[in-house]
Amino acid sequence: MDQTAFLTGFTVMSLASLAIYANGSKAPPSRHHTLLHSAVPFIAATAYLAMAFGIGTLFKADGSATYFARYMDWAVTTPILLSGLVLLAFHERGRTGEVGGYLTAIIVLDVLMIVTGLISSLAEVPLAKWVWYFWSCVAFLGVLYLLWGPLRAMAVERRGALGTAFGRNLTFLTVIWFLYPLVFLVGPEGLKIITDPASVWAILVMDIVAKVVYAFFAAHNLDQALGRHGDESGGHA
Amino acid sequence: MDQTAFLTGFTVMSLASLAIYANGSKAPPSRHHTLLHSAVPFIAATAYLAMAFGIGTLFKADGSATYFARYMDWAVTTPILLSGLVLLAFHERGRTGEVGGYLTAIIVLDVLMIVTGLISSLAEVPLAKWVWYFWSCVAFLGVLYLLWGPLRAMAVERRGALGTAFGRNLTFLTVIWFLYPLVFLVGPEGLKIITDPASVWAILVMDIVAKVVYAFFAAHNLDQALGRHGDESGGHA
Amino acid sequence: MDQTAFLTGFTVMSLASLAIYANGSKAPPSRHHTLLHSAVPFIAATAYLAMAFGIGTLFKADGSATYFARYMDWAVTTPILLSGLVLLAFHERGRTGEVGGYLTAIIVLDVLMIVTGLISSLAEVPLAKWVWYFWSCVAFLGVLYLLWGPLRAMAVERRGALGTAFGRNLTFLTVIWFLYPLVFLVGPEGLKIITDPASVWAILVMDIVAKVVYAFFAAHNLDQALGRHGDESGGHA
Repeated sequence: MDQTAFLTGFTVMSLASLAIYANGSKAPPSRHHTLLHSAVPFIAATAYLAMAFGIGTLFKADGSATYFARYMDWAVTTPILLSGLVLLAFHERGRTGEVGGYLTAIIVLDVLMIVTGLISSLAEVPLAKWVWYFWSCVAFLGVLYLLWGPLRAMAVERRGALGTAFGRNLTFLTVIWFLYPLVFLVGPEGLKIITDPASVWAILVMDIVAKVVYAFFAAHNLDQALGRHGDESGGHA
Repeated sequence: MDQTAFLTGFTVMSLASLAIYANGSKAPPSRHHTLLHSAVPFIAATAYLAMAFGIGTLFKADGSATYFARYMDWAVTTPILLSGLVLLAFHERGRTGEVGGYLTAIIVLDVLMIVTGLISSLAEVPLAKWVWYFWSCVAFLGVLYLLWGPLRAMAVERRGALGTAFGRNLTFLTVIWFLYPLVFLVGPEGLKIITDPASVWAILVMDIVAKVVYAFFAAHNLDQALGRHGDESGGHA
Repeated sequence: MDQTAFLTGFTVMSLASLAIYANGSKAPPSRHHTLLHSAVPFIAATAYLAMAFGIGTLFKADGSATYFARYMDWAVTTPILLSGLVLLAFHERGRTGEVGGYLTAIIVLDVLMIVTGLISSLAEVPLAKWVWYFWSCVAFLGVLYLLWGPLRAMAVERRGALGTAFGRNLTFLTVIWFLYPLVFLVGPEGLKIITDPASVWAILVMDIVAKVVYAFFAAHNLDQALGRHGDESGGHA
């Protein structure tokens, strides 16, 4: 049952990586978004392949499984998705130091969110599990603060189409990302309300929405903002 | 005893992260320094929380402990602190490639210093322990060379207030960072002259100086150099 | 026998790191290439020292060894070497976001190539070994596609001496990097046609060519392209 989900994940993510690259803009100033968004499902495909082989799958004393490959995937793919948003907020304006400062802060919070989530998943004592779950949520709130606070202010400042694209992508990502701590909470790593296969399939669907659907959605919004209508000659500034 | 130190560390670092962000500049060209300096104690807080729960604490055959969380903390926080100095040396001038080259070289040396320090701490054979301690010091000298050699030359070149700020920050960081290999040397991971609790408390104080006091000191120097006097309207160039 | 190779590797790589720095350009716009190329053998020296001490050396059920330190080395040094090529393709032109996008995509593929190679090396079931070997080759093809496709197009576009330097470095790196999967294939981690010492010595020679000889070759090509003839006063643009 899980095996089918893992192989489906591998297949969908591999093909999506190619499809995102094939359909994406290959010209500046948006081609680097194409590269970032097509790298993300390639990483996810590799993680699903690892899960299919049982690599990094840890069974704990209570019988529940922690898929280490999943956390490794997230620790790399979520920073890349956030980088896309940060670069969009700064589009063609930020200096190396400024962009780097925002990227570092948001990636630090994000990776700590993932790592503390992994610690929570592995914790066997309830107190430890919930303290780490709480601390992971604190880091998530830090990520959301940076996105909805200073970065959104910067993107909106210019009032143009890019601000609109940023707002749409941010809303999409926020909604889908909120589901992860909820599924963790009710799943076998948390309150054990839903079973392992249910959680695996739920996360598969969420991964496809957060990585593949989001990539096409974000590319569409960016193309629209830059006045590119499906051709390479699009009139960007 | 250690437990008190770890929970103190967690509390101080969490609050310091918020305080550094609240007090720091939120406007260009220095807001990214605020972000970098407030990310650092957030990471340290997470590491102290892990140590409080005993996560990553390894007891070796000789009874001494290696706190793995500490080395993970340092492997991320020291590169961020160094990035702040590198960005200050280049302030608003370096090109992406150049800044990236310096950042890569200094972070490589710095992370190798931490990783080889960890290997030295874990080594049970004296020869191995001291070879790795030596190699860690070599990497540290490489870091100091880049900071006091080419980067300082670049910062001084412009002779302005930013060069002074760079010099002050560099001196502060160099002095406090020199204490770490010394405490390691005399502590339970080295010559065992001081006890584990003594070493834990000493490192707690050093961590607060190197991460929190330094953050306020560096922000003060940068504000002064940019002519910002505690208000957001400060007249930077 | 292996021990001699590891200590030779440590010695050659340490000295090479100093030699590359001492001989390299210390002035913009090429000094960051000097830093990148001299960081690479310092990392390799540390990995060879670890192998000499047996740190990270794993013996599997079939008696073959996986040198974990080697894969850690490659996971950091190959991204640095690729960064040098990417920065050369963009030389002094790319914006932060664009350069960052290419760097992220190529480094993601490259690190996955190394990590999946490590999984293949550790796999005991033949099916797993060859699936991961295949997936590692897919990632390698992705790296080559980015280098020979869009990045080469960008470097050639300007038709100048820098395009020629990029082409030469790329050809050198491609040829030497192709040998690694071949030696893995016939070595003890793969088909076991050659012995462990043979594979260790072969990789030592390849490492020296790919990290040291390449560094001097790349520096020479860059100097020539920038009109720098062995002195610091060279007339770069």
